[in-house]
Amino acid sequence: MKFASYTVAGRASYGLVEGEWIADVGAVLAADYPDLRAVVAAGAYGAAQDAAAQAERLSLSEIVFAPVIPNPAKIFCVGHNYETHRQETGRAKTDYPSIFTRFADSQIGHRQAITLPKVSTMLDFEGELAVVIGTGGRSIPVADALSHVAGYGCYNDASVRDWQWHTQQFTPGKNFPGTGAFGPWLVTADEVGDPAALSVTTRVNGQVVQSQPTADMIFPVATLIAYISTFTPLSPGDVIVSGTPGGVGAKRQPPLWLKDGDVVEVDIPGVGLLMNKVRMEAEG
Amino acid sequence: MKFASYTVAGRASYGLVEGEWIADVGAVLAADYPDLRAVVAAGAYGAAQDAAAQAERLSLSEIVFAPVIPNPAKIFCVGHNYETHRQETGRAKTDYPSIFTRFADSQIGHRQAITLPKVSTMLDFEGELAVVIGTGGRSIPVADALSHVAGYGCYNDASVRDWQWHTQQFTPGKNFPGTGAFGPWLVTADEVGDPAALSVTTRVNGQVVQSQPTADMIFPVATLIAYISTFTPLSPGDVIVSGTPGGVGAKRQPPLWLKDGDVVEVDIPGVGLLMNKVRMEAEG
Repeated sequence: MKFASYTVAGRASYGLVEGEWIADVGAVLAADYPDLRAVVAAGAYGAAQDAAAQAERLSLSEIVFAPVIPNPAKIFCVGHNYETHRQETGRAKTDYPSIFTRFADSQIGHRQAITLPKVSTMLDFEGELAVVIGTGGRSIPVADALSHVAGYGCYNDASVRDWQWHTQQFTPGKNFPGTGAFGPWLVTADEVGDPAALSVTTRVNGQVVQSQPTADMIFPVATLIAYISTFTPLSPGDVIVSGTPGGVGAKRQPPLWLKDGDVVEVDIPGVGLLMNKVRMEAEG
Repeated sequence: MKFASYTVAGRASYGLVEGEWIADVGAVLAADYPDLRAVVAAGAYGAAQDAAAQAERLSLSEIVFAPVIPNPAKIFCVGHNYETHRQETGRAKTDYPSIFTRFADSQIGHRQAITLPKVSTMLDFEGELAVVIGTGGRSIPVADALSHVAGYGCYNDASVRDWQWHTQQFTPGKNFPGTGAFGPWLVTADEVGDPAALSVTTRVNGQVVQSQPTADMIFPVATLIAYISTFTPLSPGDVIVSGTPGGVGAKRQPPLWLKDGDVVEVDIPGVGLLMNKVRMEAEG
């Protein structure tokens, strides 16, 4: 199953994607499950499929995509989790994954604009596989970890590098509004299968800038879930953005910074293709 | 005014502290303002005072303190914001404050137990001044910043050092449940006056381990608000934990790690005295 979150005629909803159409499940189930996070929390996939049979069908062109999970309680990002990216950033090898956080209000959906802040000229792309938690827990063993996953999506962990590099802590560069692109939809874990059998490709204006199999993750998805859930409880709808391959704009010669009008795609075959245009922040 | 959040007979509430008593304002105003964050968001201080006049008076000994703001949308912590602490940690001087984050579910209230996790033996204290945002905003100028503050509280940003040091990102060591002690109450900004005219003292089992005037902050409260609000919007009830003075346990010779039964106090005269006992995490 593929689930998208969106607004249609100003109403927030979610639905089941079927080809170029979407069954507006949210309009049927809103009383029980107000948003996709609630569906995921309840594991209400059967109810969603039943609702889809009677729901209005919308064209994908008439909805405004929201972030796949618009309101995660926790968003974890993983730093330099591919050897190619670790080497290009000159980071030391570590025995544990590098974890920083993103606030939910920094997120945007498929086709929405990534915002180049007025205070920066160093906006960068980071194509990544996003993992959505279905069943929460604490101290989840690696062997059980993948059973806690609801599904997967594409993420562009767009980074304001000068602000990221103000100090060693990444928070400022990873939380500007309009920088966490999450879409187009959630593909349920049963359809994706092994998250290490995917590949992540990022394109800027059609040119491939990153491309790597997820099998190259230094800390695989199950390890990330086990590690993170040891220091904080995971809840349904929490998101783990699992790291970006080598090829980021900051480490190219010359650097490739995103500018107004650029089109960035994160392409994970079997999961989705996330597309966003870059727009300068409005004055004012 | 002093506002505390608490539970009484299992009911979550908040109230106005008057000496050894607390007027249970939440029992009167719950329909309009379900929690202290809602009072702060509405600036409903007059309504709270009116309600206090008719509210039941509770003894401070019969309530269970909750974190001052139990549900902040965002908690920002500031790394090495006192020169004494910067030097003892060997961190480079930076032109900007070092910002990392804490999840709300890592918080506890006054008199609740700080939890020493089973997976660590390196639990440390960090006494700090906590700033509660009253009026939200984005890109708040330094000159206006203090007018966005609802009030102040004491914070123990207790840190699981081995997990903090797994990589350069502090997230894992700063988010274990039962490590963010926030209390005993919020003192409104009008009563506190200049946040640079305070002092922070931390005691472990009665021995002073940290003590420094807040005037020594490298980046003062107004600068922190201006900086943070440039990369992310601030909302009512958001918390900025403004950094800890030198003297942390990790940098002592020999190190002073917190152990089961220790009593830690964070004392900010004019704001409050936060006390917590340390307890080993239960087995299981």
